[in-house]
Amino acid sequence: MKPIRIGLLGCGTVGGGVVKLLRRHAAMLSARLGTRLELAGVADRSLTPDRALGLTSDLITRDAAALVARPDIDVVVELFGGIEPARSLILKAFETGKDVVTANKALLSQHGDRIFKAAARRGRFIGLEASVGGGVPIIRTLREALVGDRQRAVYGIVNGTCNYILSTMAESGADFADVLAHAQRSGLAEADPTLDIDGHDAAHKLSLLVTLAFGVLLKPNQVHTEGISRITLQDIAYAREFGFTVKLLAIAKNEDGTIEARVHPTMVPSRHPLASVSGAYNAIYIQGEALGSTMYLGLGAGEMPTATAVVADIVEIARMRLAGATEASDHALGYPYSALKAARIKPMERVACQYYLRFMAEDKPGVLGRIASVLGRYRISIASMIQQERAPQVPVVMRTHEAREHDLMVALTEIRRRKFVTAAPVFIRIEEQL
Amino acid sequence: MKPIRIGLLGCGTVGGGVVKLLRRHAAMLSARLGTRLELAGVADRSLTPDRALGLTSDLITRDAAALVARPDIDVVVELFGGIEPARSLILKAFETGKDVVTANKALLSQHGDRIFKAAARRGRFIGLEASVGGGVPIIRTLREALVGDRQRAVYGIVNGTCNYILSTMAESGADFADVLAHAQRSGLAEADPTLDIDGHDAAHKLSLLVTLAFGVLLKPNQVHTEGISRITLQDIAYAREFGFTVKLLAIAKNEDGTIEARVHPTMVPSRHPLASVSGAYNAIYIQGEALGSTMYLGLGAGEMPTATAVVADIVEIARMRLAGATEASDHALGYPYSALKAARIKPMERVACQYYLRFMAEDKPGVLGRIASVLGRYRISIASMIQQERAPQVPVVMRTHEAREHDLMVALTEIRRRKFVTAAPVFIRIEEQL
Repeated sequence: MKPIRIGLLGCGTVGGGVVKLLRRHAAMLSARLGTRLELAGVADRSLTPDRALGLTSDLITRDAAALVARPDIDVVVELFGGIEPARSLILKAFETGKDVVTANKALLSQHGDRIFKAAARRGRFIGLEASVGGGVPIIRTLREALVGDRQRAVYGIVNGTCNYILSTMAESGADFADVLAHAQRSGLAEADPTLDIDGHDAAHKLSLLVTLAFGVLLKPNQVHTEGISRITLQDIAYAREFGFTVKLLAIAKNEDGTIEARVHPTMVPSRHPLASVSGAYNAIYIQGEALGSTMYLGLGAGEMPTATAVVADIVEIARMRLAGATEASDHALGYPYSALKAARIKPMERVACQYYLRFMAEDKPGVLGRIASVLGRYRISIASMIQQERAPQVPVVMRTHEAREHDLMVALTEIRRRKFVTAAPVFIRIEEQL
Repeated sequence: MKPIRIGLLGCGTVGGGVVKLLRRHAAMLSARLGTRLELAGVADRSLTPDRALGLTSDLITRDAAALVARPDIDVVVELFGGIEPARSLILKAFETGKDVVTANKALLSQHGDRIFKAAARRGRFIGLEASVGGGVPIIRTLREALVGDRQRAVYGIVNGTCNYILSTMAESGADFADVLAHAQRSGLAEADPTLDIDGHDAAHKLSLLVTLAFGVLLKPNQVHTEGISRITLQDIAYAREFGFTVKLLAIAKNEDGTIEARVHPTMVPSRHPLASVSGAYNAIYIQGEALGSTMYLGLGAGEMPTATAVVADIVEIARMRLAGATEASDHALGYPYSALKAARIKPMERVACQYYLRFMAEDKPGVLGRIASVLGRYRISIASMIQQERAPQVPVVMRTHEAREHDLMVALTEIRRRKFVTAAPVFIRIEEQL
């Protein structure tokens, strides 16, 4: 049978992993498919031939556009990252009859409309497993395994850097800055870690998960996004006293078609499976109407986990082509692109949560009462408290019953203005019923 | 577009769930596929019409063979269970151009050869997601997501009844017989629970997982199988002291093409994600060469979880047909059936494990030394011990370093013969490096 021929755009960490897997497992992949997966060309600005990887000089080019246009190529694997030229090259690939595999979550979440529409119009497929969760097969699980169920909620630990930092803080007692510095030295965090620690990478991924889980379109800027840099050891310790673990969660809920989508530090019960996901692991926990809860756990990034996801998409495309499919069914997002509508968003002010609160206050009689009375005025009731030893300034630490985000923000602003409060109040949202 | 028409064989618990899902989510499924999934007929001996479910009398028949032969049907969903007539009906379905979905793990694991061969010969697909792990999408994950990696090991909690019994024993302190009786009353265990608690159901599932993970064929009777009925509260408590939790694990390892496959009570580190899988949940933990460890968690049985898996397979078949695939690619097991070879099995005697051991012995000086010296003679060294208070009969409890199964069995037989030993020694295998 004719081999399936691959054009690779970008041969950095993940691209190198793809080349290794295709080479190392060539016999297994041929046995699985009944034909070979053949690397037909690699576009990369700085790649040099590598005999061990089978990267001969005739395979390497700097002209990505020419590679994409080649008629002998079946699948284009886009691993350049960034918006351009990735977007144009992907569109070009569809125009010339190729299917595409990409790990480019920034591109897909921000500019997916043109790409998915073009794929549908040309009857081509776009595999995006590698864009969320690295080696955790969450895209195809939502698109295929959970296809007959209605999802209620998605809770994802989808940023390995943040999870590494938070779980290391909790385990080692080192503070945020120290753990971040260590993560940067050991390659677990970028030199500029902003996209990760501010939650934006997780928001990109959540917007894709929302589409796959709920069948609606959502832009990352519609996700309420907070990062982890304000998380202190003190709050992690209080969380533990309350029986909680702090995680950066990407949360999406669907309530009769209205979508709640937010990324922020979250306290989850320490006995919940998500709480024990540590280090650079990712996990996605899904609540379905019929299926109940399922969870998917694995390494969320790195050369080989991400490369495994890319190869899975290549194999899927190969199988469709080998089965004689005249065009790919338009299901990269679980629905035909034309069936997707813009999400109806629940504004953050209307979201209801339980909260962990910490106030730093002068140790005077009546302080707690005055805090509680402001909270009460805004319909926020206290579920439990941690009493502190006496000192000139004491932390007043509590968890609340469910309250409206809007009410909480107004109450905190009001409390902050009081003279006996010596620092900005700290709040962390709690998800207990997951 | 033409609807995809389904013939359902068996409308018990899972079949009823399938009918409900197809009806409840008809609009969503149509939006996903661009065409309807239509229930064309139901074969069941005792079904009566049910308007709420849309089961009108013209849909219901007792003649399963006639239903399977109908030319207007695209997909046959076999939920009769058992060997016959399920097997003949599935073969008939392939002959007449249908694809098949089944949850029948007993049939597939024991008589899969004829079925998979027939599917391949006729270019038809057989979806078996529902046969292992209920709502946990482990079949398609192995078949698709992990397709570019080589799996090293599979550790599965794949029998919900056993997991419920063991985790309830550990949490409530009730003994095996009481928890089993309670599980039977509440429908979590069958009236005749033998297939579950003796480990045979797990062995059926493991034989399918071995094929999907390692690309080799294995019969359930090639799986070393032990059940959970000998697990006592005492051993669960000692396990906890050693930092372990007792689970019925289905374990398969691939060492350069030699397969180790066994189902037995196993101690796993209490901090491992598998240890926290409680109640009727299932989880499959997979170690891949490139991907590292991933875990898949969810409800392993029941009406709706299993029905969700069935519908996922129906949708997959529908997508293949709608994409114009002339025949299904032969990948139900991750490989074309013809590429699968019989597994080369590592005999249980040659398997090496760590062991938990408990001896009941008279409390005399030198007893421990005499036990240790027999163990030592068979190259079994003690890693740690739990000292007991003095009593006429004392438990001598220890964990060993890695030892050969054969050596352990001979040593235990020899120790049993000693006069100071008052009961058959207890052993439970430990998996620590997972």
